Amino acid sequence: MDDRLEKQIGFAMAADRLKGVIRRSLTLGGERGENSAEHSWHLALMVMLLAEYADEPLDEGRAIRMALLHDLVEIEAGDTYCYDQEACQDQAARERAAAERVFGLLPPDQAAEFRALWDEFEAHATPESRFVHAVDRLQPLLLNYHTQGRSWREHGVTSGQVVERCQVIEEGSKRLWEYGRKLIDDAVAKGYVSR
Amino acid sequence: MDDRLEKQIGFAMAADRLKGVIRRSLTLGGERGENSAEHSWHLALMVMLLAEYADEPLDEGRAIRMALLHDLVEIEAGDTYCYDQEACQDQAARERAAAERVFGLLPPDQAAEFRALWDEFEAHATPESRFVHAVDRLQPLLLNYHTQGRSWREHGVTSGQVVERCQVIEEGSKRLWEYGRKLIDDAVAKGYVSR
Repeated sequence: MDDRLEKQIGFAMAADRLKGVIRRSLTLGGERGENSAEHSWHLALMVMLLAEYADEPLDEGRAIRMALLHDLVEIEAGDTYCYDQEACQDQAARERAAAERVFGLLPPDQAAEFRALWDEFEAHATPESRFVHAVDRLQPLLLNYHTQGRSWREHGVTSGQVVERCQVIEEGSKRLWEYGRKLIDDAVAKGYVSR
Repeated sequence: MDDRLEKQIGFAMAADRLKGVIRRSLTLGGERGENSAEHSWHLALMVMLLAEYADEPLDEGRAIRMALLHDLVEIEAGDTYCYDQEACQDQAARERAAAERVFGLLPPDQAAEFRALWDEFEAHATPESRFVHAVDRLQPLLLNYHTQGRSWREHGVTSGQVVERCQVIEEGSKRLWEYGRKLIDDAVAKGYVSR
């Protein structure tokens, strides 16, 4: 059996573990936390859906591939809740070490290619990275809003924290941030999140 | 609020329901059925990972977008278990009606674009469609193999049925079918699936 294909299949089977990494946002059914695999699908679909709102010209195919990979390191590092300050402190170091191991499962050329996409996402320095980050913040904002802010309330999150967390949307799309900002105001008005 | 963006967000929120459509294949943890949202992510990732094995030149970006959309009609039509002959009889008609409703949520230009990608997938007539179908069969074969065939055994599926179901892999990639064929032989040898 050829070693290259075995490595690729091994990577695909390791990636399956992302289905067991649970986030704080609820699915719209409201009955359970979303996992990072289905989140990644939803994100990639929304990148495809909303690409026209990117403020800079976009290589949409690269942005979608970036979305598919952006959370893969969590199979080693776990999901870090964005409002948990302690866990966030060493998040970057933990995720970088995880990236070494996870992408290291691939044949060398593909390891380099996938790792470069993930590094590009992390660096926030290209239009694709900025737009994927924007949609990566908009997606849980929408889920939280449409589940009446249950996860926000359960974790004592304030609207100020949500604004701080989400305003990175503006770096990728002024239009989507305008939409998100109104959603947060409306969430406050409806009591979904504390002022 | 502009109507176009509202429609797009409405589509994205309706798509969330794919996270609640449960398939017969188990995640590798073995503790639950995979849902169609995380399956779609896994498929899109594997299309990106294995594109080099396509027997025909591929527009990889279009193939990935097709993978992201391929199961969306299930939010209306549900998942059809491939070994349930009765459900399979009207599957095409049910899914076509669902496609009208689901893609009809989008602004007209995007409805046409997404629907065309789904129609292309269904028609098996382009290299992208054939390759996405190939990986769409290989992915559950791998999950079933790596959970010792539990879902096959629970549903009384035979290796002949698995071969019949999976040989469409060959239309997209002779190399991946060679791999899949060996996996099925090995599953028989290990007692994961009945002869």
